[in-house]
Parts: sequence; C-alpha cells; structure tokens
Amino acid sequence: MARIVQKFGGTSVADIARLEKVSLKIKKEVDAGHQVAVVVSAMAGETNRLVGYAQSLAGNAKSSEYDVIIAAGEQVTSGLLALALSQIGIPARSLLSWQIPILTDLVHGSARIEQIDPQQLEECWSKGIVPIIAGFQGLTKQGRLTTLGRGGSDTTAVAIAAAVQADRCDIYTDVTGVYTADPRIVPKAQKLKEITYEEMFELAAQGAKVLQTRSVETAMTYQVHVRVLSSFYDEPGTEIVPEKMLNDFIHVSGITYRNDEARITLKNVRNQTQAIADIFETLANADIHIDMVVQNVSLEDSIDLTFTILKGEIPRVVEALQEKTKILYDDLILDPNIAKITVVGVGLQRRLGIASLMFKTLAGLGIPLQVISCSAIKVSVLVDESVAEEAVRVLHSAYGLDKEFEF
Amino acid sequence: MARIVQKFGGTSVADIARLEKVSLKIKKEVDAGHQVAVVVSAMAGETNRLVGYAQSLAGNAKSSEYDVIIAAGEQVTSGLLALALSQIGIPARSLLSWQIPILTDLVHGSARIEQIDPQQLEECWSKGIVPIIAGFQGLTKQGRLTTLGRGGSDTTAVAIAAAVQADRCDIYTDVTGVYTADPRIVPKAQKLKEITYEEMFELAAQGAKVLQTRSVETAMTYQVHVRVLSSFYDEPGTEIVPEKMLNDFIHVSGITYRNDEARITLKNVRNQTQAIADIFETLANADIHIDMVVQNVSLEDSIDLTFTILKGEIPRVVEALQEKTKILYDDLILDPNIAKITVVGVGLQRRLGIASLMFKTLAGLGIPLQVISCSAIKVSVLVDESVAEEAVRVLHSAYGLDKEFEF
Repeated sequence: MARIVQKFGGTSVADIARLEKVSLKIKKEVDAGHQVAVVVSAMAGETNRLVGYAQSLAGNAKSSEYDVIIAAGEQVTSGLLALALSQIGIPARSLLSWQIPILTDLVHGSARIEQIDPQQLEECWSKGIVPIIAGFQGLTKQGRLTTLGRGGSDTTAVAIAAAVQADRCDIYTDVTGVYTADPRIVPKAQKLKEITYEEMFELAAQGAKVLQTRSVETAMTYQVHVRVLSSFYDEPGTEIVPEKMLNDFIHVSGITYRNDEARITLKNVRNQTQAIADIFETLANADIHIDMVVQNVSLEDSIDLTFTILKGEIPRVVEALQEKTKILYDDLILDPNIAKITVVGVGLQRRLGIASLMFKTLAGLGIPLQVISCSAIKVSVLVDESVAEEAVRVLHSAYGLDKEFEF
Repeated sequence: MARIVQKFGGTSVADIARLEKVSLKIKKEVDAGHQVAVVVSAMAGETNRLVGYAQSLAGNAKSSEYDVIIAAGEQVTSGLLALALSQIGIPARSLLSWQIPILTDLVHGSARIEQIDPQQLEECWSKGIVPIIAGFQGLTKQGRLTTLGRGGSDTTAVAIAAAVQADRCDIYTDVTGVYTADPRIVPKAQKLKEITYEEMFELAAQGAKVLQTRSVETAMTYQVHVRVLSSFYDEPGTEIVPEKMLNDFIHVSGITYRNDEARITLKNVRNQTQAIADIFETLANADIHIDMVVQNVSLEDSIDLTFTILKGEIPRVVEALQEKTKILYDDLILDPNIAKITVVGVGLQRRLGIASLMFKTLAGLGIPLQVISCSAIKVSVLVDESVAEEAVRVLHSAYGLDKEFEF
C-alpha cells in the first residue's frame, strides 16, 4: 500500500464528462489498495471568469476579497468530484482549505503555505474516505481566505504530499509530461523521462507552464516524489528526481522561452553606485520584480543600465522611475517586444561549451543578443520577440534534442 | 442611528453594473449614520448553473457535497460586493457562513438555521466596516457547509436581523413590493402598503415567490420588522407588520396560485382508517410532503382518497404506494395538470362570505373545484391548470382588488 496524492488541473476537470473520467483514475488507485488524497483546480475557464469580475471592479488589486471570489472555483470542483466518486461507489468528501486547515501567510493573491494539519486527511483514510481537496486556496491565522497564485493547485498538491509524507505526488495535466521544448513551437520536442528538481525549477521559472515554480521549490525542499502525467492518455509521464538519481553525465534537458517581459534601458545614469541602489530600492518599494539586469562597462561618469520587468508592470515602473526618484539619467528606453530564451541543464557550470554553443547558434542565425544571464543550470539570452520561436527550434536541433533519447 | 439589515437578491446583483448600483444603496444608509449589515444571494443564474452540474452527476440528491457546490455562488457575490464598496470608499468585508458562524441542522439542501453568533458583526461595526454576508448557507456543528433551500438568503437576512436585534430588515428584490396577485398574470394587481406576517406566510406558501416561506416564519417568531423593496426603483415597498398594527377590518390581501403540484386519487381504498394511516406513514417515511387532502363521504366500505404532492416527487410517490405498502385500492389516478388558487386575508374566518364569493365566482366561470381547503386566513381550491390564470384575474376583480386602495 502506498500513499498517493493525485492532482488534476483545470482542463482535466473542465466538464462533467471529464470529472467522471478523473473519478475512474482515482478509483483505479483506490482499488489497488492505496491511500489516495486528491487535489483539484477550478474547471477550465472558471478562474478567468471570476478574476474578470474582480478586475472590472478593482483592477488588478489582490485583496482579501479577490481571494474570496476566486477561491470559489476550486470549491465547486471539489464538491463535484466527491459527488462523482460517490456515484461509482468510492466514498469521498470535499475538504476546503479552512476545513483542513491549510494555513498561509497574508499575501493575498500569491500566498505561501506555512502549515498543513494532516489530521483531517488521516481521519478520512481511517474511515476509507478519499479526501478531495480544493487546491489553490489557504487560510490566514486571522480566518480569511487566501489564494496561492496561478498554478497554485500544483503547490497545494506537493505541500499536501509533504505533509502526509506521501510516497508519490502525481500531477495530472493536459500534456503528457515535461518536454525539451514547447511542442507547439518545436514539433520535434521530446518528452523527458526524468528531470531534476533544479532543472524543473528553471524550466518553470523561465516559461514552461507545466508546473508552478513554487510547487517545484516545495518538492525540492521536502524531496517529494513528483510525476507529471496526462489526464487523457495512459502513458508514462516525467519523473522529477534528485540530481543524484540521474546518470552522471552533462546534458541539456530543455529549451524554453517567455515573452511576458519588457526591457527597460536607462541611458547615461549619473552617480552610478548611489543611483543603482536608489533605482532598485524604488522598484522594490513598489513591489516590482526585476529580472535580468546588466550595465555596460564604462570609463565615463555615466552608465547605461538595462533590466527586464513583467509587461503588466510597465506603467508602474515608468511612473516610479520618472516621478518618485531623484535619479539622474538622460533617457528611458522601453522595449516590450522581447523574448527571453533559456537553455536548462544540469552540469552547465561544468561545461562552458554548452553556453557557447547557444551563442554560436544564435550568431549563425544573425540574431543579436541583447542581454545574457547565466546560473548554475541555465543560460538565458534576451532577443527580439519576432525571432524567438525560430531560435528555440534551431537551438533544439543544435543541442541534439530532436532525436528520441534516454537518460 | 438605526441598525439595518439589507438583503439583495439574485437579479439585484446579476452583473457588475448592478453590484455597483447596490453599493450606492448601501452607501446611502451608511452615510445616514446607520449600522448596516448586508446579505447577498448568488448572481442571477449562478445557482441554477451549479445545481445543473450537481444534478448531472447525482440527480436530485441533496448531499453535503451538493451544498459545497452551490454555496460557492453567494461566496462570489459577497466578495464582489465588498470590493465594490471599498471602491467607493466604504470599508466592507465579506463574511461566509463558516466565518460567523451561522450554525444549522444537518438537513443538506434545506437546512434550518439554529444559531447565529453576532460577535463578528459587532466587531465589524465597531471598526466601521460593513459586513457583507453570503446568504443561503450555513455550517453544521461537524464543520460541513449546508444550504437553506431556494430563497434561503431571505431567511439568512431575517435571522441575522433577529440575531443582532436590527431595527429593520430590508429585502431588496426585482419587484417593488408584495402585490395582491402576480402582476404578470393580473395586470391590475395592486401593491400592498402593509401585510401581516400571517398573510405573507400564506402568500409565500401558496406560490407568491417574493419571500421564502421560512423567512416569514422566522420574522414572525422574532417579530423582525421586514420591508420588501425594489432594487431598481426608488419607491416605498411593502411592510410586513404584526396583525394588531393593521386597521381592524376584514380584507383580502392577495390572490395567488401555484402549479407545481400534482393530484393523486386512490379509488376504492379498503379498510379505511388503517389504510389512511398506512398511506401517510409510507409517504412520511419516504420524506414526501403532502398538501391538500380530502376523502369523499361514503356509506360503503371503501373510500376515494385525494391529495396533492410536488410534481417532482411523482415517481417516488407512485413507487412508494405501489410497491412498499399493502394498502388495498382499485386504481391510482394521477393528474399533474392542476393548479391551486388561494385567496389570503386576515379575518377570513370571521366572515365566511369571503370563501363563498370565491366559490360563486368560479362557478360563474364554469370552473369545477376539485378540492377545497381552508385555514384561518386562506381559502384554497384546486382547479384545472389551463383555467388558473383566468380564474386569478376574475377573482382579483371580484374581491375589489383592481382599484388602488389604502389600508
């Protein structure tokens, strides 16, 4: 007997027919004698509908009421799936965040889970009941509802798995696993059999939408055994594993890109050291996340400073930089038409050839690199948005990912 | 300063524009210095959508999961309205049934409120915050969600008003008050300035949809001062008052009908006394509510027994009577095409002429009366469904309700 957490995303529970299929997947594990807990997302489209209501009243503000509104979606799915299971003879009950409780911090709209009491789950299992947990939501110590941000149900599932020391956390989704690139852009993209926590974290952070970044972080911290699987096809997915479990050779596990950022360059910033400190303090105070940062090497008194931000935050950034600081610079150049391409792989830091293959390949395509950024397991470059998809496809070939492979 | 509960129904909160209008109505009372608590329904159509999902999985069964699913609608509205108020500078917060809590019994789908803790409301008021309560839902002592049945938000509002000893409970709805008949059927129907609890109770029970029956019962028990008002037009509505406040003369306050019942006649039931007891015990055990009951006077050993049930329960009633009892009868005659017309008025029992005017009027139209049933403040007759609306119109004239009047 194993203890298994199964998580089903929005497209997997998009309508009643799919909910009934999902209930059969759960039944299969229950019939095999396992202790199963299930985490569900809102039905596809539902969260967008509710966010739309909230936005038309209060814009993008993430308040406690925003969370009350959008948490309703997962509540409905948990009740429906519990009903569907009862109909096929599997005792089940919904569990909402406040009933467990799943305690979080106070950051509405993107709260972090702080504590999960496993008692209600243990009680369900002792009675032979499958708990169906509404994902994506939590409760503050003050008794208010919170939500965990887009993809938050992944994090609920992994955190539940950690809390009950599950043997496995199966994330059922609308893709069949984690791919070396987005198959819609790179038709030859290959499904990975395994990927390390670190690589998965970078892929998620750099634009692969298959898992919420924070869920990977949680899995890494608590060493939760995660599998990414298809809800629709019965085939093996991708396992996320600690690095030591992978064969010890250097490899590239995926190429991804995101185009939701914009580039800002401040020309001729004076008083360099103080100015940079001021700029980043100003933006941090405005709660604006900054990504890639570079400055040119300069012998002059002034420098050019470049960084990227989320496109949605352009107005706030421009306002903050133009009005709220005394930083001296000549010009603010804004380019929203950029894309960040990232190559992710364990061992990149040990073999610089991997980064240089990226630069050589893009140079061969005549694509200028606007910004470069490296970490232990990734290399990212900023390019013009219009060439991003082609670049991903060519890089996918250049790294030898077009052929099927096994690790 | 008064303490006021305002309740807004589904059409009053059907979209964002209407929610914004509702927020202005609340602001008006707050600006006037009153302590206001608000109770909201789900947005129009939302409960039906959610019930539809539940039905497609589990039919009409009302389970704890059914309640988890449909309680989501009011949760969304309470969050949205709190947001809308914040946007116009009125501090507000949503309060869900489990946060207050509103404790109910265990009857899922039509739970009864047993206890409301007013502490959270008092706390909101002490901080100048308007509490926006999700109507229609409650919590069991075991921590599960319940719902109060169709129109349950009315009952939430009246119960909240009783719990906080409110000066007034204003029920805002899509009609401008309580009418002498349904204005869609009787164009000359008049709005009542006042109506007694008892009359309102009968009108609600006999098909007037303006208030949930149970809410009137609660108002009567706790002597809550209820007003029924329009969300859309700024005009005086109908006040529900204790009988002693009305001028002391006999009057008919309304004529209503319902066509959601079916008539069942058992022909030649033998062993009369025992059989009747058996029949009603059988139906009670199956949780089937029986309405009008008559039996013919008979010199024979056998009688004909007629009663009405909700149309939705026909299959269960027929099954119960045919299979689960040993009652002897010759034939079961089922007629779903019936309507019950009811004349409601204080003082009916003191003036029998009111009932006979009804019989005379219907006789004049050539409408056969299938069943008659009287109580202290109403007379109901069962007629063929096809003639019901015409009968209501003619009775409305016959009782002199077509002209504007004042009590």
